[in-house]
Amino acid sequence: MSLGEFDIIARYFARQSARGDVLLGVGDDAAVLDTQAGRKLVVAMDTIVEGVHFLADSDATDIGYRAVAVNLSDLAAMGAEPAWMTLSLSLPRANEQWLSGFASGLFELADEYNVALVGGDTVRGPLVVTVQVAGWVEADAWLTRSGAKPGDLLFVSGIPGEAAAGLAVIQRSMLGGEAAAFLKHRFLRPRPRIELGRQLRTVATAAMDVSDGLVTDLRKLCAASGCGAQLNVDALPESAAMRELFEADDGLQYALAGGDDYELLFTLPADRAAAVLSELQLQQRVTQIGVMTGGEPSVQCLRDAQPFRIRRAGYDHFNTGEAGS
Amino acid sequence: MSLGEFDIIARYFARQSARGDVLLGVGDDAAVLDTQAGRKLVVAMDTIVEGVHFLADSDATDIGYRAVAVNLSDLAAMGAEPAWMTLSLSLPRANEQWLSGFASGLFELADEYNVALVGGDTVRGPLVVTVQVAGWVEADAWLTRSGAKPGDLLFVSGIPGEAAAGLAVIQRSMLGGEAAAFLKHRFLRPRPRIELGRQLRTVATAAMDVSDGLVTDLRKLCAASGCGAQLNVDALPESAAMRELFEADDGLQYALAGGDDYELLFTLPADRAAAVLSELQLQQRVTQIGVMTGGEPSVQCLRDAQPFRIRRAGYDHFNTGEAGS
Repeated sequence: MSLGEFDIIARYFARQSARGDVLLGVGDDAAVLDTQAGRKLVVAMDTIVEGVHFLADSDATDIGYRAVAVNLSDLAAMGAEPAWMTLSLSLPRANEQWLSGFASGLFELADEYNVALVGGDTVRGPLVVTVQVAGWVEADAWLTRSGAKPGDLLFVSGIPGEAAAGLAVIQRSMLGGEAAAFLKHRFLRPRPRIELGRQLRTVATAAMDVSDGLVTDLRKLCAASGCGAQLNVDALPESAAMRELFEADDGLQYALAGGDDYELLFTLPADRAAAVLSELQLQQRVTQIGVMTGGEPSVQCLRDAQPFRIRRAGYDHFNTGEAGS
Repeated sequence: MSLGEFDIIARYFARQSARGDVLLGVGDDAAVLDTQAGRKLVVAMDTIVEGVHFLADSDATDIGYRAVAVNLSDLAAMGAEPAWMTLSLSLPRANEQWLSGFASGLFELADEYNVALVGGDTVRGPLVVTVQVAGWVEADAWLTRSGAKPGDLLFVSGIPGEAAAGLAVIQRSMLGGEAAAFLKHRFLRPRPRIELGRQLRTVATAAMDVSDGLVTDLRKLCAASGCGAQLNVDALPESAAMRELFEADDGLQYALAGGDDYELLFTLPADRAAAVLSELQLQQRVTQIGVMTGGEPSVQCLRDAQPFRIRRAGYDHFNTGEAGS
């Protein structure tokens, strides 16, 4: 059975939303949305490509989930509350089973965070998924990468490295029972740290989400803030599942350079950090992993108080052997 | 020379905007935008894929231009004033000459309409370009496809078919001097009818942009409005350039089913149409090509008052031999 573009949209993506601010949703030339006085609109757009951001034989549900998760993670890093999204789906064939799985993954986090799909485009082409999310922050209070100051304490949420370890488990078809399943899940189902971002919104001096690897992303935060960072490798949160399946050194590389964590990296003023964290009563585990320093906007990793070199840097889509001209 | 993602963004896409409502633009996890009380936000997203929406050897400038034009055309169809855009660029290689051309095309219409590029994503992958545009309409007055009533007069802007004829000129490497150059330009550089949409915003009963072919898109307007349409083929505006290079019958097929017009199709109440059009003092040529009818939401084409059959339907990305499962 052949599905036209309109059938696809009607069957899988046109849903009634409970949001009263969607004045006109999927199906016209554009969506019409109501805005909120005194709040600022926050928008992020992320694209995932088959074979680059997800494995070529990935489950459609996982692809749909990831397309939303990576975008919500950007809103989390701004301290924003998600509201709407648009979807561009380029796919080679209109396969009903695939579309059904994709849509269920797409709406999993969208429903949890009350994000309405308000529009987009469905085209024939290579498998490339782009989502744009929009959300709100209260006036004049959002998180950026650029506010860290020398002396600020550096924190990360969750356990960096578990996602990269999970990818290794999948790629090597590793056995390993519950630990393997746990790590795979960490890779396939990243949790955007929306609640944490909302809590940090007025107290963190800088924040960003960790998607390309902890050290690579920390360098970006340093560059944006114009200061350096000392990262204490010994302070990194340990993963029981990674300890079970990987050598300690490999685990460390995943934590520092693995990517796909979608955790929040953020800074707090040293003199208020303890009080802030105790007041916030965070549901999400956060760990102090270093301190911001003066001087060059670079990252120094320390292990046993000695400089420590990571084996590989994080992922930059264009700085690979294949790219460049 | 190898270009990383950050170099690409910094060099080609991070521009200062004159817009005061861009509170935080390209370079952080998300953009932060100021909204306007009493206005409604209008968002559209369109994707163009190499080999599907543009030819594989297209000029990078034309690709950049098209990515913005097709989106602005959607805003035009809503009567919206454009404000911001985000860009997802999936491309195989980071070629500086290509990127420079692409960016110049991208900013051509963006600058003309004061649209700020506020964020997006740049990834390695097949050549796929997605743009989301956002704009504004005054409260409670925007155009939709669904407001046409039986008896309303049906209009189209510009000269449908010239773009499809221009594509034929390119694909067949036709000679033909000025007429050929004119038609090619009509295909490569569609003009979004922003000003016309703004003028029609409070007076048209329905509107949409024509991208998949006049009859195919008119069918969508009929379906959304729940009425039929009679399209008078003899009333279609004639193109001097098409008459010079194509048989009359071929020209008619391009006009009815060619696609890529990016003109506005709209309806006006019969008793007020003449007065409305004379009051508006439109800069853009519009032509009455039919009338909306009661009954089934289908399109009847008439030529010399006789039913007329078009040879081929418009383009649906998934209803081709290749697609479907």
